[in-house]
Amino acid sequence: MDSPAEPYASLRYFVLSHPSPHVAHVEINRADKLNAFHEAMWLEMGSVFRALSHDPEVRAVVLSGRGGKGFCAGLDVKAAAEGDMLGSSGGGKGKMDAARTSQKLRRHIGEFQGSVGEIERCDKPVIALLHGISFGLAIDIACCADIRLAVADAKFSVKEVDIGLAADIGSLARLPKVVGSSSWVREVCLTARIFGAEEAQRVGFVSRVCETKEKGLEAATALAGLISEKSPVAVMGTKEILKHSRDHSVDDNLRYTSVWNSAMLQSSDVQVALLSGIQKKKPRFEKL
Amino acid sequence: MDSPAEPYASLRYFVLSHPSPHVAHVEINRADKLNAFHEAMWLEMGSVFRALSHDPEVRAVVLSGRGGKGFCAGLDVKAAAEGDMLGSSGGGKGKMDAARTSQKLRRHIGEFQGSVGEIERCDKPVIALLHGISFGLAIDIACCADIRLAVADAKFSVKEVDIGLAADIGSLARLPKVVGSSSWVREVCLTARIFGAEEAQRVGFVSRVCETKEKGLEAATALAGLISEKSPVAVMGTKEILKHSRDHSVDDNLRYTSVWNSAMLQSSDVQVALLSGIQKKKPRFEKL
Amino acid sequence: MDSPAEPYASLRYFVLSHPSPHVAHVEINRADKLNAFHEAMWLEMGSVFRALSHDPEVRAVVLSGRGGKGFCAGLDVKAAAEGDMLGSSGGGKGKMDAARTSQKLRRHIGEFQGSVGEIERCDKPVIALLHGISFGLAIDIACCADIRLAVADAKFSVKEVDIGLAADIGSLARLPKVVGSSSWVREVCLTARIFGAEEAQRVGFVSRVCETKEKGLEAATALAGLISEKSPVAVMGTKEILKHSRDHSVDDNLRYTSVWNSAMLQSSDVQVALLSGIQKKKPRFEKL
Amino acid sequence: MDSPAEPYASLRYFVLSHPSPHVAHVEINRADKLNAFHEAMWLEMGSVFRALSHDPEVRAVVLSGRGGKGFCAGLDVKAAAEGDMLGSSGGGKGKMDAARTSQKLRRHIGEFQGSVGEIERCDKPVIALLHGISFGLAIDIACCADIRLAVADAKFSVKEVDIGLAADIGSLARLPKVVGSSSWVREVCLTARIFGAEEAQRVGFVSRVCETKEKGLEAATALAGLISEKSPVAVMGTKEILKHSRDHSVDDNLRYTSVWNSAMLQSSDVQVALLSGIQKKKPRFEKL
Amino acid sequence: MDSPAEPYASLRYFVLSHPSPHVAHVEINRADKLNAFHEAMWLEMGSVFRALSHDPEVRAVVLSGRGGKGFCAGLDVKAAAEGDMLGSSGGGKGKMDAARTSQKLRRHIGEFQGSVGEIERCDKPVIALLHGISFGLAIDIACCADIRLAVADAKFSVKEVDIGLAADIGSLARLPKVVGSSSWVREVCLTARIFGAEEAQRVGFVSRVCETKEKGLEAATALAGLISEKSPVAVMGTKEILKHSRDHSVDDNLRYTSVWNSAMLQSSDVQVALLSGIQKKKPRFEKL
Amino acid sequence: MDSPAEPYASLRYFVLSHPSPHVAHVEINRADKLNAFHEAMWLEMGSVFRALSHDPEVRAVVLSGRGGKGFCAGLDVKAAAEGDMLGSSGGGKGKMDAARTSQKLRRHIGEFQGSVGEIERCDKPVIALLHGISFGLAIDIACCADIRLAVADAKFSVKEVDIGLAADIGSLARLPKVVGSSSWVREVCLTARIFGAEEAQRVGFVSRVCETKEKGLEAATALAGLISEKSPVAVMGTKEILKHSRDHSVDDNLRYTSVWNSAMLQSSDVQVALLSGIQKKKPRFEKL
Repeated sequence: MDSPAEPYASLRYFVLSHPSPHVAHVEINRADKLNAFHEAMWLEMGSVFRALSHDPEVRAVVLSGRGGKGFCAGLDVKAAAEGDMLGSSGGGKGKMDAARTSQKLRRHIGEFQGSVGEIERCDKPVIALLHGISFGLAIDIACCADIRLAVADAKFSVKEVDIGLAADIGSLARLPKVVGSSSWVREVCLTARIFGAEEAQRVGFVSRVCETKEKGLEAATALAGLISEKSPVAVMGTKEILKHSRDHSVDDNLRYTSVWNSAMLQSSDVQVALLSGIQKKKPRFEKL
Repeated sequence: MDSPAEPYASLRYFVLSHPSPHVAHVEINRADKLNAFHEAMWLEMGSVFRALSHDPEVRAVVLSGRGGKGFCAGLDVKAAAEGDMLGSSGGGKGKMDAARTSQKLRRHIGEFQGSVGEIERCDKPVIALLHGISFGLAIDIACCADIRLAVADAKFSVKEVDIGLAADIGSLARLPKVVGSSSWVREVCLTARIFGAEEAQRVGFVSRVCETKEKGLEAATALAGLISEKSPVAVMGTKEILKHSRDHSVDDNLRYTSVWNSAMLQSSDVQVALLSGIQKKKPRFEKL
Repeated sequence: MDSPAEPYASLRYFVLSHPSPHVAHVEINRADKLNAFHEAMWLEMGSVFRALSHDPEVRAVVLSGRGGKGFCAGLDVKAAAEGDMLGSSGGGKGKMDAARTSQKLRRHIGEFQGSVGEIERCDKPVIALLHGISFGLAIDIACCADIRLAVADAKFSVKEVDIGLAADIGSLARLPKVVGSSSWVREVCLTARIFGAEEAQRVGFVSRVCETKEKGLEAATALAGLISEKSPVAVMGTKEILKHSRDHSVDDNLRYTSVWNSAMLQSSDVQVALLSGIQKKKPRFEKL
Repeated sequence: MDSPAEPYASLRYFVLSHPSPHVAHVEINRADKLNAFHEAMWLEMGSVFRALSHDPEVRAVVLSGRGGKGFCAGLDVKAAAEGDMLGSSGGGKGKMDAARTSQKLRRHIGEFQGSVGEIERCDKPVIALLHGISFGLAIDIACCADIRLAVADAKFSVKEVDIGLAADIGSLARLPKVVGSSSWVREVCLTARIFGAEEAQRVGFVSRVCETKEKGLEAATALAGLISEKSPVAVMGTKEILKHSRDHSVDDNLRYTSVWNSAMLQSSDVQVALLSGIQKKKPRFEKL
Repeated sequence: MDSPAEPYASLRYFVLSHPSPHVAHVEINRADKLNAFHEAMWLEMGSVFRALSHDPEVRAVVLSGRGGKGFCAGLDVKAAAEGDMLGSSGGGKGKMDAARTSQKLRRHIGEFQGSVGEIERCDKPVIALLHGISFGLAIDIACCADIRLAVADAKFSVKEVDIGLAADIGSLARLPKVVGSSSWVREVCLTARIFGAEEAQRVGFVSRVCETKEKGLEAATALAGLISEKSPVAVMGTKEILKHSRDHSVDDNLRYTSVWNSAMLQSSDVQVALLSGIQKKKPRFEKL
Repeated sequence: MDSPAEPYASLRYFVLSHPSPHVAHVEINRADKLNAFHEAMWLEMGSVFRALSHDPEVRAVVLSGRGGKGFCAGLDVKAAAEGDMLGSSGGGKGKMDAARTSQKLRRHIGEFQGSVGEIERCDKPVIALLHGISFGLAIDIACCADIRLAVADAKFSVKEVDIGLAADIGSLARLPKVVGSSSWVREVCLTARIFGAEEAQRVGFVSRVCETKEKGLEAATALAGLISEKSPVAVMGTKEILKHSRDHSVDDNLRYTSVWNSAMLQSSDVQVALLSGIQKKKPRFEKL
């Protein structure tokens, strides 16, 4: 909404780079804490993806974590406890009754969900590269991405039950719609057991496993590059219709799609794409 | 609705045969153009499946493409451009403003979706055999079938982004509900990359891979034959309830099912089936 | 609702034991008839799971079938025919017209669905161990469990079309939401073909295959034990939110989750879990 | 779909006229039978409204019944019984079992619903003028119209329970969404009691009562004329979005609306309308 | 489910009579406490309506309150506080943390909602006669009835905000779907202001106002009598389809209706009704 | 989200006052332009209601327009045309193709809807007082309020079709859910005809008509005052559950409500309310 001239100028917890034209690379930048999140971080993450969503120079996004240890260790529990972000997780709340505490917590959870959800709402496809420790919030975040790649050393856990709570930032909402086996989803969510990259690929959580983080970044960037060479009208429409499809019936989605494409087919991109197909040249599409 | 005495008499783009009792085999019949579709074809396809849906002699349908090169190469883009079927895909539409063009396109897409959707609405199970080139519209069509088999040489692509548009005839609505891995679905839809039969089986898009087209047809026909020997009341009910289940909650589906079966359990087929089970004979069921 | 002092005292068709603290083991106890169900059995099963749902001593449930031959052979068709439970399955109903017969059948199906559905509604996670013959109703029951394990000798079949009817106790409602491949689901539902443990695992129907029934019970009990050591507030919330997620959009689920956790985060379990994490001790949680 | 050169040429049970530019008037033309319907009639009614929906010359439609006695007395029960259209309403169906009869009836009801529903699906607003006897099917039809006017002599009845069945062509689906008082809706549906024009207006079923049929036709035609002078892009969009709104949440409708208008705002009609507002002239809009 | 030989034998808080054939009259029987409810009462009310739902002798139900002071003054707050039914409404719950208290309250509310909801789930139409004080729970109960009549002295209030809570037994869920004006609904729910019979009729909450309680009972009984003379197949179907319609889209409801009537049209009631129409005799329908 | 120390300090187009404790009065402050809106205004309106939603001092809000001429004349069309906010409403967009223009418009409409929707999302009840000219956007805004009062001189119009477009900021989404008569809604939306306060009350759009603007403000402020004296926990819960109820089934809403109240019943407000009822004193509730 408010995209100032330099929307990315003041990033503190994320690093933004452009490995190739129209591709943005977002890195979680708190490697010394295993990229664990506190409130200022997820607010910033929300802002970054809101800006990327409308940035006409960007057509695909890669999201990864800095450092060699892991994508993200989850919530920074210490910061959360200090900031009272696990609500009255300490009980004995002094003045506030349970209803009022509840109301405060509900707003807090809603804002947290909203920030993380910006990844999903981003109009551009997001490719998450998951390496090393990828616990708790890492799963919430990864489920918001369009495509997930793993590095062979990745260790995943839907960690929340281990700290006494049900995951509430989206893992339980999205994971069952991201992989096919309900039995597997419930097992990993109810036990918090760690699973690796190979298992993640077998159940369909990630669509590829890369040997090292470097190769993973290459693969993710290449994939983003490939997408960014397509018509941005076609790519944005494809993401939007797939997003809509998850939460709607087929009939509803077809109706929505027909209205969507009734405008989008009037793009010059169709001609550009067809012509370059005939001429065996790379098409060049206007900004969106 | 209008099922004349000879509903299949005047087929131009499809061939209909009956490889075994109660089994219909529909073949796309434009092998010289890789079975690419133009408007008259999909209208005819809609009519064929509408007629099969109510044909009391037919209990299961096999759908395949003629020729050795492929099931279907997608939309016949040349015909589409001439017939203005990609809308004003060339822009500069002369007299019509963007809103009016949009309205025309919306109706056009709706009718196209409607014709292809007749495969899904068909009361009889449809088994699609996919071989060779199976691009674009081939995926839309295949997603409407109940069961998909692939020949080893099959090459699949959700091709639409490569011609500058988001797939709008059903691939994006149905594919995420046909296979389990959202990461994989988004990858193939956003990149249009080609994938083969083995990958298609691994992700669950097809349930079997056959060595050659001939073996594929044998397998598909045998599967259709097996289904056509079951109670047609049971088979139609199973398809209907599964279709309903995709787009409704479990509670809604259970309620619908209880109403459905409150009539269907009054069929004589239950007795016929139980008796033939005891007598170790093949049951013979009345027409539906 | 009405949980008397000894809710499990009068069990006739089920055996209840407690292999470890907070773990309940429910066994179907009609091995001489391959654990086939008649009406009194499913009513009792419903009562058992309704009681377990609110039993503060129980935090996870294992469900299996007694005997070496199988988990459950399905409906006891002979008893069903005698009790007229397949409705007028014999037609010629004497006095009642088809509408009145239909009304009676609809209520009957609804009550049957309701009893089986208690497994799903149970507030505690349910782990089903499937061995040997697991036909028809066995699939309906298994689909209501949270996690499914198979013994290597398991033989599965969505058997209903073979007795002339569409499955109406939940298999067609839940199976498509339990595994990822629609093509596979429709194939096994339309053909009633038997499939084994390995195939069940490959498509995601079960999440593990165990060599023998004994090893299966060990695995199921260990899994239940692991879950029962977690915070019961976290586990119940995780099950509830996952259940809600299946039938709702992501946005709806996130809203529901934020309200749910606004109360649940006020549990002392979060502190207990965090503290025991720091102290490397096993946490001890209050009853729920 | 199939709009031949003269789509209205062969009307038998309806009369079509054009009382003013862009306004079509459809009259039910079986006054000697109180405009009671048989199958050929509703099929023709479906065709008429399908053609009107896409007819660029038509921007609003008036629907009324010929003769002085009534809009429509409902289903022609005698014809229905002969044509077996109340299904096996006589029971004892000879060869067909209850399941097969049920299947035949289900298709029949579906086609009947489909024909009547074309009034609702028609892209142009439909104004129904209800006079005299308006029973049973008259209510189903009226509920599909956008706006209902009544003549003072109108007598309404949701008549179906009086002939031993629940209304199945749409009255029970739409009436509760057409008027505000659930208590009133259930009373008139459960008792089939007759109510008059004044009561119909008080509960909001009709929005105006006219003294005589002649004055009613003037009012309906004037209303249609007023609508037909507005931008056809704006009018069609308004109807479409209102239709969508009835069956969707507010959030879903807002999303759909934003996509719809993203194309429609590119119409020249906005400028034409604004300019003519400034110039105090009647705007002239292009065909749609 | 459990309908013993004498399901109504042991009623303590309700009186059941049969003012005319096939009509049941249920009276809340705690006039000395203004018919205020405690837990045993609503459990009994649930049982009564569950039994009536399946009682073949009953075709319509009248619900009223004994005594001259009012239909029901709401929850018996004193009993609720003692029984801890407003949860820890007093806070400081001793041993239980807020999450565990919350869990207990959630189950309690769910069971309370379930008992009251039996009125809505009852297969027979329910007519509520509201007189005098009709506060709080009286509105929840009345909203579950199909038809509401008021006595002129009725005083209504959605009272819950006045005791510090949001109504949770159904008023807020159903009232907006029972009357048309959202502005009015929100005003009376947010302010708890008292409104009278005339206002209730004007906004459509009740469909008739009767001068005295006696006249009200006559009117309610006559209405129930009228309904009970219709085909019970038609009446039950009408209620079921209207109930379904409230919570589903028109398309969904039409599909459900076509399946429902595919069995119900095979009733002999259609012939009986038509014949008695021709013969000008009262029809006699078989039990359902 | 970002509620600085002085969230209301810099208001330009709105005036905020506090006519009584816990009541906020928001006035649209552009009387010289009949309170017509441009983009900066609706962004500011969104911010105001976002701040009010979380402001612990505020428990109810009155919304009105400054000046004697009207609540709001709608969109400031001149500003919109200059700022290109009717999209390419003039067509001939120079460089941008129709698809790209469409994409820009879609985001713009979404943001506009989002700002206006903050009134609905506001956790505190909003009472709109409508006087004089209340056209176009005035209806969108009014439909987001909880309660609507009208001054006798109010003139309403769903004006959008008169400027060549379908209303897209919420009138068509919400109006059919705000009043009961679909026929009336469609008539006023399709014709843009002006209606007065009395008609608005008769159809339920407003719940009261006041003689003059002064009396209207008194009434609105008194109503807000009455609400603000109730338990803020009860009031917020009532609004939230009513909001949820509009877009969900009754069953869904009951489940949501039981979770909501499982925390909220733990408020001390219940005791405070009961006690003050006994003591006949005004209750004093803690901030929320």
